[in-house]
Amino acid sequence: MRKILVIGAGKSTAVLIKYFQDKSISENLHITIGDISIESAKKLTGDHPNTEAIALDVFDKNSREKAIQAADIVVSMLPASFHIEVAKDCLRYEKCMVTASYVSQEMQELDAEVRKKGLVFMNEIGVDPGIDHMSAMHVIDRIRNQGGKIILFESFTGGLVAPESDTNLWNYKFTWNPRNVVIAGQGAAAEFLQEGAYKYIPYHKLFRRTEFLEVEGYGRFEAYANRNSLKYKKIYGLDDILTLYRGTIRRVGFSRAWNTFVQLGMTADDYTLMNSENMSYRDFTNSFLAYSPSDSVELKLRHYLRIDQDDIMWDKLLELDLFNPNKKIGIPNATPAQILQKILMDKWTLDKEDKDMIVMYHKFGYELDGKRKQIDATMVSIGENQTYTAMARTVGLPVAIAALRILNKQITDPGVQIPIKAKVYTPILKELEEYGILFHEKECNYLGYNPDGVKG
Amino acid sequence: MRKILVIGAGKSTAVLIKYFQDKSISENLHITIGDISIESAKKLTGDHPNTEAIALDVFDKNSREKAIQAADIVVSMLPASFHIEVAKDCLRYEKCMVTASYVSQEMQELDAEVRKKGLVFMNEIGVDPGIDHMSAMHVIDRIRNQGGKIILFESFTGGLVAPESDTNLWNYKFTWNPRNVVIAGQGAAAEFLQEGAYKYIPYHKLFRRTEFLEVEGYGRFEAYANRNSLKYKKIYGLDDILTLYRGTIRRVGFSRAWNTFVQLGMTADDYTLMNSENMSYRDFTNSFLAYSPSDSVELKLRHYLRIDQDDIMWDKLLELDLFNPNKKIGIPNATPAQILQKILMDKWTLDKEDKDMIVMYHKFGYELDGKRKQIDATMVSIGENQTYTAMARTVGLPVAIAALRILNKQITDPGVQIPIKAKVYTPILKELEEYGILFHEKECNYLGYNPDGVKG
Repeated sequence: MRKILVIGAGKSTAVLIKYFQDKSISENLHITIGDISIESAKKLTGDHPNTEAIALDVFDKNSREKAIQAADIVVSMLPASFHIEVAKDCLRYEKCMVTASYVSQEMQELDAEVRKKGLVFMNEIGVDPGIDHMSAMHVIDRIRNQGGKIILFESFTGGLVAPESDTNLWNYKFTWNPRNVVIAGQGAAAEFLQEGAYKYIPYHKLFRRTEFLEVEGYGRFEAYANRNSLKYKKIYGLDDILTLYRGTIRRVGFSRAWNTFVQLGMTADDYTLMNSENMSYRDFTNSFLAYSPSDSVELKLRHYLRIDQDDIMWDKLLELDLFNPNKKIGIPNATPAQILQKILMDKWTLDKEDKDMIVMYHKFGYELDGKRKQIDATMVSIGENQTYTAMARTVGLPVAIAALRILNKQITDPGVQIPIKAKVYTPILKELEEYGILFHEKECNYLGYNPDGVKG
Repeated sequence: MRKILVIGAGKSTAVLIKYFQDKSISENLHITIGDISIESAKKLTGDHPNTEAIALDVFDKNSREKAIQAADIVVSMLPASFHIEVAKDCLRYEKCMVTASYVSQEMQELDAEVRKKGLVFMNEIGVDPGIDHMSAMHVIDRIRNQGGKIILFESFTGGLVAPESDTNLWNYKFTWNPRNVVIAGQGAAAEFLQEGAYKYIPYHKLFRRTEFLEVEGYGRFEAYANRNSLKYKKIYGLDDILTLYRGTIRRVGFSRAWNTFVQLGMTADDYTLMNSENMSYRDFTNSFLAYSPSDSVELKLRHYLRIDQDDIMWDKLLELDLFNPNKKIGIPNATPAQILQKILMDKWTLDKEDKDMIVMYHKFGYELDGKRKQIDATMVSIGENQTYTAMARTVGLPVAIAALRILNKQITDPGVQIPIKAKVYTPILKELEEYGILFHEKECNYLGYNPDGVKG
């Protein structure tokens, strides 16, 4: 039996394990799931004969080394910052490794040694990063092979609630780590390229400069800019590209309302509020507004942010109970972001029957035979339930497929890498189609931002 | 002769040196000015017989120790972060020390040893911090001695251009470190107290929540909140205070126009712009606006920030040449803040004949004999020229006066300290009056933010 060690039994692991279990006889696999909580690991083994749960503290050197030594390949589904310890052991005991996380500086530094030992350390092979890389390079390489030149690449991904579970005014529920949603976009300005011009959006304007996207059968979405679009220039080899933009997808209207929190200062995570524990939701809202002995918190907020009384944005704020004087925060020494997260979790937590949805949208603009053309490619994946979510599927399946292919010596080029080579991504994308993860392509008129070539 | 060592020959040192020189015969003083540039030091000595210039690199242990050993008292006019090396030598060689800077954590940690050796390390005795502490505590202590209870303290300071030199639409020129002006207010939210309620203003709203101030004979000013008002609760012993607010003074309209830069993202200092060296001022402005092949940078900006064409704010932007396609930035790898600073320095640098102005405004609200009362105290100081500036006067004189009083054993309580004790500040304020630095007090009706005691 070939032994696969999966470290970390979090939310995104269910589909991954099921994939291995379903192949365990045909592929002769034994699966070990290690987690700091053996209960979490056991939940995933089920009563499947070829699966074993073990307690594994990744910071306990002995048990970590023992588990890795016993494996033929290691899949790390830990939080990104924990991979490096696993990676170093994999290098030492000469095991291949797969993660769905961005390649860290430390991970990249292992590259030379990983190559020397002929190992494959495949990273960024979840959904975003992962399916985005593979599906984008799939089209980019095809256009290039036809002799085309890529002049525009825009790519958008969103983790959302499925239409059938979309029951609030925000058209949004937390389908992943709520904290990342609350602090999304903070830090230095979002940088991107539009028609050859570098553009910068500071955080406090990010949610007011969205683009619309239309996905057939699913309606309209919007996207705000990610901070790191420019790095894809090098990764995808898009050196002469004129427009390069990556963004996060939400339903239309989300960003405009979210901007309320940004403007008030409710998303700040760099200081704590006095007496946060005993504050009401209303007190919290009022801390960002000037004192008045007579004006209501409601009117102060409406006036401060110039929200008309018949604006749907106002109803969105009311829906969250932001002005409730009776609900208590209950968190001592909390940052505004921590408090906002709590308030949102009251309303944006998935109900038992709710399903999630992953939406991905790529635009490829290119020149071929003197003509400018455009291909739009979209993918929508809807979860089955709260175990087999769209997120778990789109993260877990590419990880699992890649791991098995590495084990089967179908992926052999050594090194610390991401799935941007055709021989890596082509069969994986093919197999993902069997699981319903597929892109619809549409040829459109190239629009770009300057169809007439005006200088401006 | 008693030997005074002044380290650092920067902008604020001229008045300080002149004070010592004028007293050098009556007080039997020898003044040594040490600076990394002996030329800078020599400019300050003039041909005065009791003054000597030396080259002094504060990071060169030997020359630093030698100079400190030879002195009877040390005045450090270095940038704040450089004081600590001087302080440690002063402790070792048992010399008293004076600085105009905030007490750093490291400086505070020397307190026990400084006390043990009976030394005085006086800090925060410039203008802000310095004159603000002394003039505020002067009134606070008087109200308390009358049996009054302080319920409101608001304090504002600004370094501005004098009315006779106020020649641009912004009513502002750089009279001090331009960089500090460009990045002012960045970081965590400004925190303060209004009628017992803690209030927080995020950076991107700071310049839209100003207060107006009227100074007799000088007209109207405005002030935006400083980040650190709350720490004065402890320093001034204002434990039960209801309103506590510190701010920075500008002329009316400055903040509203400055907000343009904040909103665009031009004050950001945490990333660099691509190709900054070869950008024009117009390119710089355009990097913060969406791409358009046809719309002008001007119209895009006006629309983005909703500036009416007849708004004076617009003229302020034009005055700065923000849309000039021919002026080049010329700074490689520059942050937006560095570029903005350069653009502003073209227009906001003092002309040769220009004078500066320091404005300070305190409001003290208190209860006495069951009545609520208020005292407003204001101070305006106007520079003589570009050597004897108001800034150099208001920073240098209190430092010099304190140093001489320490030397004369008129200030003897040992420790790392700031000038908030009556026996320290009373004679210093008295002497400052001789130099025209004096406060005008006015009794007013207590207004506060809740005159009728409404709950809200």
